[in-house]
Amino acid sequence: MNDYFEKILQAEVYEVAKKTPLEKAHNLSNTLNNEVFLKREDLQDVFSFKIRGAYNKMSKLSKSQLTQGVITSSAGNHAQGLAYSAQHFKCDATIFMPEATPLTKVSGVKSYGAQVILKGANYDESYAHATTFAKEYEKEFIHPFADDAVIAGQGTIALEILEEYQDLDMIIVPIGGGGLISGIAIAAKAINPNIKIIGVQASGANAMKTSFEMQIVSNSKSVKTIADGIAVRDATPMMLAYILEYVDEIVEVEEQEIANAILFLLERQKLVVEGAGAVAIAAMMHQKIDVEDKKVATIISGGNIDVTMLSLIIEKGLVKSNRKMKLLVTLMDKPGALMQITSILKDSDANIVQIDYDRNSVKLDFGEAHVTIALETKGKEHQNTIRENLKHNGYRFKQI
Amino acid sequence: MNDYFEKILQAEVYEVAKKTPLEKAHNLSNTLNNEVFLKREDLQDVFSFKIRGAYNKMSKLSKSQLTQGVITSSAGNHAQGLAYSAQHFKCDATIFMPEATPLTKVSGVKSYGAQVILKGANYDESYAHATTFAKEYEKEFIHPFADDAVIAGQGTIALEILEEYQDLDMIIVPIGGGGLISGIAIAAKAINPNIKIIGVQASGANAMKTSFEMQIVSNSKSVKTIADGIAVRDATPMMLAYILEYVDEIVEVEEQEIANAILFLLERQKLVVEGAGAVAIAAMMHQKIDVEDKKVATIISGGNIDVTMLSLIIEKGLVKSNRKMKLLVTLMDKPGALMQITSILKDSDANIVQIDYDRNSVKLDFGEAHVTIALETKGKEHQNTIRENLKHNGYRFKQI
Repeated sequence: MNDYFEKILQAEVYEVAKKTPLEKAHNLSNTLNNEVFLKREDLQDVFSFKIRGAYNKMSKLSKSQLTQGVITSSAGNHAQGLAYSAQHFKCDATIFMPEATPLTKVSGVKSYGAQVILKGANYDESYAHATTFAKEYEKEFIHPFADDAVIAGQGTIALEILEEYQDLDMIIVPIGGGGLISGIAIAAKAINPNIKIIGVQASGANAMKTSFEMQIVSNSKSVKTIADGIAVRDATPMMLAYILEYVDEIVEVEEQEIANAILFLLERQKLVVEGAGAVAIAAMMHQKIDVEDKKVATIISGGNIDVTMLSLIIEKGLVKSNRKMKLLVTLMDKPGALMQITSILKDSDANIVQIDYDRNSVKLDFGEAHVTIALETKGKEHQNTIRENLKHNGYRFKQI
Repeated sequence: MNDYFEKILQAEVYEVAKKTPLEKAHNLSNTLNNEVFLKREDLQDVFSFKIRGAYNKMSKLSKSQLTQGVITSSAGNHAQGLAYSAQHFKCDATIFMPEATPLTKVSGVKSYGAQVILKGANYDESYAHATTFAKEYEKEFIHPFADDAVIAGQGTIALEILEEYQDLDMIIVPIGGGGLISGIAIAAKAINPNIKIIGVQASGANAMKTSFEMQIVSNSKSVKTIADGIAVRDATPMMLAYILEYVDEIVEVEEQEIANAILFLLERQKLVVEGAGAVAIAAMMHQKIDVEDKKVATIISGGNIDVTMLSLIIEKGLVKSNRKMKLLVTLMDKPGALMQITSILKDSDANIVQIDYDRNSVKLDFGEAHVTIALETKGKEHQNTIRENLKHNGYRFKQI
């Protein structure tokens, strides 16, 4: 038995973490012609798996270290996991967060009794401030992923999965820094060496994928993705080494694919899942991984999505799936013109949700007006009917 | 033991229904200074409790009745519960739905193999068509609530709740037709006669509350609520009789209170809950029921909310909780005017999400322009700062 696996077997997480359910996703399994199970880490009290690693690390600290207090830098889930664990140990926690962190995330961390310091324009700057502060005040800095005790905590997820289904073909895992996939891969392969471990990154934050393929650390200049939980710019050498040894493949998904997966999970499974938690589903839905006839577990890593983002994803998703359409119609600028078009739309059973009337556009002839109309529709066919009805009545319009 | 309770004890539901978890709501319990448990009926395979009553009723049908097929009229959860149960019995199901039913609900029912007939402008018209059709084709009409076998099925929820906590002070239950609360009240009071059963209606669909108070059926002229699962216009005499006998009190909640509860559950508990499923939480959050120091179970009856509605609730909720604001600012209509105001907003750390520029309003003097700006903000204090900064720089504006 290797040392790493030993550490996972000895990890202490259940004082604060739950054994989360591994649920079969019926809709998805039917569509993909396989068996998909969702490991519901979004059901942890802090709504993400990060509680496992943070708690395990803290459980290894000495009494005097706990008395001195702990520090981390994080914009999200690790911060909440650490704050929650620190509360359990009655230990001070100081969390450095980027200045632009949304209020909801700040309040989340504060609600577990941690002190929040908003410093730095981005994660990397916060990290620098936090490590300096940690040295100055002799507090223990708890790294979000590059730490064997943190990795071992995350590895307990694989123990739970394989306890239920040892004969899985594959586990699909999101990759940000790489702590989650390292822990899962080490434990899963120790129990079943034939299991494939596939990592998923967002294409806007794919340093680990590039590094994995080149077999050497290759950092990105920038990072940009709606999956903020895995928006890690640089690949850490220590993590790359684990991943090269234990992970079979890394794929990437585009922003729109992540948004589709979030909307699918919300609408069809009634799950609130954050971007990072949805990438494994996105990779399957968009055929990035061959999963046909396979028995697959995927990690729903967290549920901490901002409701503003959720609302944006819904709105864009409705347009994409033909349940909303926006038309720019050219009308004669005279009394009754608007009434006539709204009457045609009513007869087409289309619900108007927004309307803008403009007669000052330079693109218009005198006596014409532009009206922008947003409609709720029932699908592709319904949209065709609406367009036909408008054409039939002589309207000029374009979809925008 | 009374006959009704006997029927609940003998109800068969677990072939298709799950024993759902009864989860403590920590946030809510802390806020209300009590113990609140959520009975998670949104976790049923069809995302609502209706599967219990529909299945129990079907299990009582004869072989020849099953061969003939079943019928119902429903715009929502009962339709899905019946379709799912019929699939289990390999029995034809015909569901009459109002013509304007959203596509997603129609597809939901069809996905369980039921036949959908879109007929009638509203539920009452669909109901009339369905019962006529049932007679003509000799099919069994399965009523959504006014049926003892259906009520008995819903009553199994109370058996599960009291199995976990027999010493509850109160169960809070949404009321539409009244099937759910009747079943729960009968079972709960048979086990613990001291338990209080409190019903909650939407103020836009409160026929049962009015009837309960007048002790005689008093129907509404209309019905209008975002809680479509309990949008029942008329009180049925049979249901009123049960409720008068077994229910202690009925309260009502306003639309905005329901929306607040949906947003709270989404944002703080990561739960996707439909309007009907959120009314019990709304009643507690808005002090309609005295729950202090009490041990309370509430029924989260279902999760079938349209994502369009969810997006609308998020948007309105953000404005109400000071995380969005819309300003109408009067500018001088000259180059650089827009740049100047956006620069002030940037310095105030306010994110612009929408902007409209208008210089044609009749309310404007020549040389002035109106700009409507929607901003993402961090709370009340942040909004004050933004207003101060604009005033300080001499802008005229109003919040809209």
